[in-house]
Amino acid sequence: MRLVIVGVGLIGGSLALALKQSGFATEIIGTGRSAEPLQKAVDMGALDGFSTDISEAAKGADVVMITVPMSAMKHVMRSIRDSIGPDTIVTDGGSVKGSFIEDAREMFGSLANVVPGHPIAGNENSGINAAFPTLYNDRRVILTPTPETEAVAVQTVTELWQRCGAVVEIMDAEEHDRVLAATSHLPHVLAYSLVDALIHLPEREAIFRYAAGGFRDFTRIASSDPVMWRDICLSNRDMLLAIIDHMQSNFAHLREMIESADGDALLEVFTRTKTARDNHYE
Amino acid sequence: MRLVIVGVGLIGGSLALALKQSGFATEIIGTGRSAEPLQKAVDMGALDGFSTDISEAAKGADVVMITVPMSAMKHVMRSIRDSIGPDTIVTDGGSVKGSFIEDAREMFGSLANVVPGHPIAGNENSGINAAFPTLYNDRRVILTPTPETEAVAVQTVTELWQRCGAVVEIMDAEEHDRVLAATSHLPHVLAYSLVDALIHLPEREAIFRYAAGGFRDFTRIASSDPVMWRDICLSNRDMLLAIIDHMQSNFAHLREMIESADGDALLEVFTRTKTARDNHYE
Repeated sequence: MRLVIVGVGLIGGSLALALKQSGFATEIIGTGRSAEPLQKAVDMGALDGFSTDISEAAKGADVVMITVPMSAMKHVMRSIRDSIGPDTIVTDGGSVKGSFIEDAREMFGSLANVVPGHPIAGNENSGINAAFPTLYNDRRVILTPTPETEAVAVQTVTELWQRCGAVVEIMDAEEHDRVLAATSHLPHVLAYSLVDALIHLPEREAIFRYAAGGFRDFTRIASSDPVMWRDICLSNRDMLLAIIDHMQSNFAHLREMIESADGDALLEVFTRTKTARDNHYE
Repeated sequence: MRLVIVGVGLIGGSLALALKQSGFATEIIGTGRSAEPLQKAVDMGALDGFSTDISEAAKGADVVMITVPMSAMKHVMRSIRDSIGPDTIVTDGGSVKGSFIEDAREMFGSLANVVPGHPIAGNENSGINAAFPTLYNDRRVILTPTPETEAVAVQTVTELWQRCGAVVEIMDAEEHDRVLAATSHLPHVLAYSLVDALIHLPEREAIFRYAAGGFRDFTRIASSDPVMWRDICLSNRDMLLAIIDHMQSNFAHLREMIESADGDALLEVFTRTKTARDNHYE
């Protein structure tokens, strides 16, 4: 098995480290535009080799795993489409599945060997230096195969992730994008907006100085990679706008309760919210 | 030194445990409406005794520390005002200082022995069972003495918190309320609103199921005590409404960037936000 990983950052690098430890792939090759992270990944024992020529690297691949920002997906597909074989499986680790499928349709025509995927893992860090082999332990990986995708391709990608300790689930791409807009994309946009709003206040120094643990946790995701999140916002724009509007309407309603000093209504909202969250996480 | 703590939950209970360990007060008495948490605090070694008669408990106190939800402050002050002595220091652990000062002015007339305080500590847990003696280690405690407050009273309360390992800082009450509205009250309202918005969606089960660590951190504060947060919203209403409006305007602007697919503007916001947060916390 020859696995080629395009983009060796936190997601791709951790995958390579985990697979190396499990002995899944006989050969793991990294590729991307810049040699430095690739050399680092070789030094860490994550890769058997690398090339900065993406097209060349993809030759002879059984599986190509693309872990680059959403805006670079199409470019990578264009680079590999003439060098991969007819049975090469193409999969990815991107956060938005609808746009990945659109790009793959446009670049490959057939989706028979295309397995869209999304590991629900990662944190606010990025880059190969943040990679570690247990990132996927007990984490969910969602695959969103299209009706055209062949079962054997889905099976191969499923095993690849299971070897990393992940729990693989199959989901419809549209549902994935709607659910992730709510649980991940909206919270990131909110956190960025909150921090951005606060750094424009005259009290910005005092604000960061007196912020306690709750604020630090709440804003941690505002330290996430800006390019990755710009791309996610644009790639999942429609779903994200819909959930933003839903949230804004809830928030405006809560603001009204505060303005009218409606303590009973506030208590009701806070109580049902705490109950729901506690039920899911305790 | 006789210290009377009104309301022995996470804040009051942790204070008692920390002071017991440090040997600051010769006698720590708990009081409140319900015997159960008070008995528990005695069993934990946090208190020397307790009474459910607040007025009675306050007799002979050198310091009365009020750690109850904001809406109960005035009731507690009314209960103790005829039983405390002329030199008894009254202080608190409430999250809003303007309303505490208003209540104290109304109930006591003089603010000479009133030291408004706010430990920037605590977490989403509440109640005596969540209390622990190191809660205040290296945490900030803000005191907002009024122009009338006597220096010796401020000094006593400062020492009390320092004995718990806290770093005490003096701040203007209005500035405190404005800064805390931004760093604590707004994030809590946002987290409550986000979770509330999501539990009303048809995908609510999938949403909690596929939520990763970022979401869990982001919504942790939505598990905070509903009564306490209702009270904070009402007690700091004006400051909170102002910062909500500031944030909503920022968020609406970000929404526009997403709708118009303005990747450059999004990247600029996300980059400056990440930079600001990283500079403050790394």
